[in-house]
Amino acid sequence: MKNKYIPDDTIRRLPVYLRNLLNLKKQEKKIASSKEICFSLNILPDQFRKDISYFGTFGKRGVGYDVDKLIYTLEKIIGIDKKVKVILVGVGRLGSALIRYKGFSALNIEISYAFDNDPKKIGKIIEGIEVKDIEKMEEILKEEKILVGIICVPANKAQKVAEYMVKSGIKGVLNFAPTTLNLPKKIFVSYVDMASELGSLIFKLNNL
Amino acid sequence: MKNKYIPDDTIRRLPVYLRNLLNLKKQEKKIASSKEICFSLNILPDQFRKDISYFGTFGKRGVGYDVDKLIYTLEKIIGIDKKVKVILVGVGRLGSALIRYKGFSALNIEISYAFDNDPKKIGKIIEGIEVKDIEKMEEILKEEKILVGIICVPANKAQKVAEYMVKSGIKGVLNFAPTTLNLPKKIFVSYVDMASELGSLIFKLNNL
Repeated sequence: MKNKYIPDDTIRRLPVYLRNLLNLKKQEKKIASSKEICFSLNILPDQFRKDISYFGTFGKRGVGYDVDKLIYTLEKIIGIDKKVKVILVGVGRLGSALIRYKGFSALNIEISYAFDNDPKKIGKIIEGIEVKDIEKMEEILKEEKILVGIICVPANKAQKVAEYMVKSGIKGVLNFAPTTLNLPKKIFVSYVDMASELGSLIFKLNNL
Repeated sequence: MKNKYIPDDTIRRLPVYLRNLLNLKKQEKKIASSKEICFSLNILPDQFRKDISYFGTFGKRGVGYDVDKLIYTLEKIIGIDKKVKVILVGVGRLGSALIRYKGFSALNIEISYAFDNDPKKIGKIIEGIEVKDIEKMEEILKEEKILVGIICVPANKAQKVAEYMVKSGIKGVLNFAPTTLNLPKKIFVSYVDMASELGSLIFKLNNL
């Protein structure tokens, strides 16, 4: 699959399909139609079929998709068929909430290390994870290959933290700080921009 | 501007431009180029010019944009030139973190009411906001017109909360619960889907 062009929107929908499939599995569904897989997603079944066609041929016309098989395939495609460890920097209120957030584990993602520079936070244990001194990050990531880091520090500290992450070997950054990061092109950066989401919503209410 | 087609991506970028402009203002910039406005956004200056051209003619060729004026215009376009009040339901760890989150106020958005159904949380005061019994929501929204609600309850409770919000007069929902909502078409729903963002990032690291 390397180097094949896959639209960004397709990529963003993969974990969403996976979550709906996991729900169907919980309901003990064995076979699901594309309509069921798209249930309440605002995605047309055609779009789903197009999205997964990038990765091969799945499902049987008129029958549907084997739920277990498609879950396995999607986990494999995304790269979460084995547990993926990530780190988090910034154990403030948002950071602590994320450490305790249950949504990650459904996708086989685990926050394995949390870092902060505040002596009052270092050593604290949250959800079984000890908050470590941020200065230990490089050393820890030398021992254990972790590629993804979550940034939950204030906006004015995010760039410096991101650079240190990259220096320590992180290749993908999920940034919650309300600011944009300036990193080498080879680093993947995603933003969870809560205020902008609210802003867009308010725009739509006022204009559409 | 009503009924004019504006791409969703353009809408999502407006608050992002605004935030960069607010940063430029903080740095006491009076005039900014489109390149400066797009600084570290991964957005080309051409895209910015195209995006704001939906709303009129701004800036002077070869001179740039009046920072204050463009901030005012964008706030007006988005609908946050006056303070916008929103409600939040679900004062768990994520909900509390959001109440304390500083990113909203920069965009003139205020979480004015927080609701929960847990007697242990009702009455608590967080960041000056008293957590109210969720059953009071309809009554409160009858007194005060608030159109946007944030959902921070667990996934299995989100649909019911969303329906109650809509019944109480909410027209736009920002959903943090890792599940999709099934609401009338006239209701705007946005998702902040942290696990999916991480999933997409992991996919890119594995495949691109």
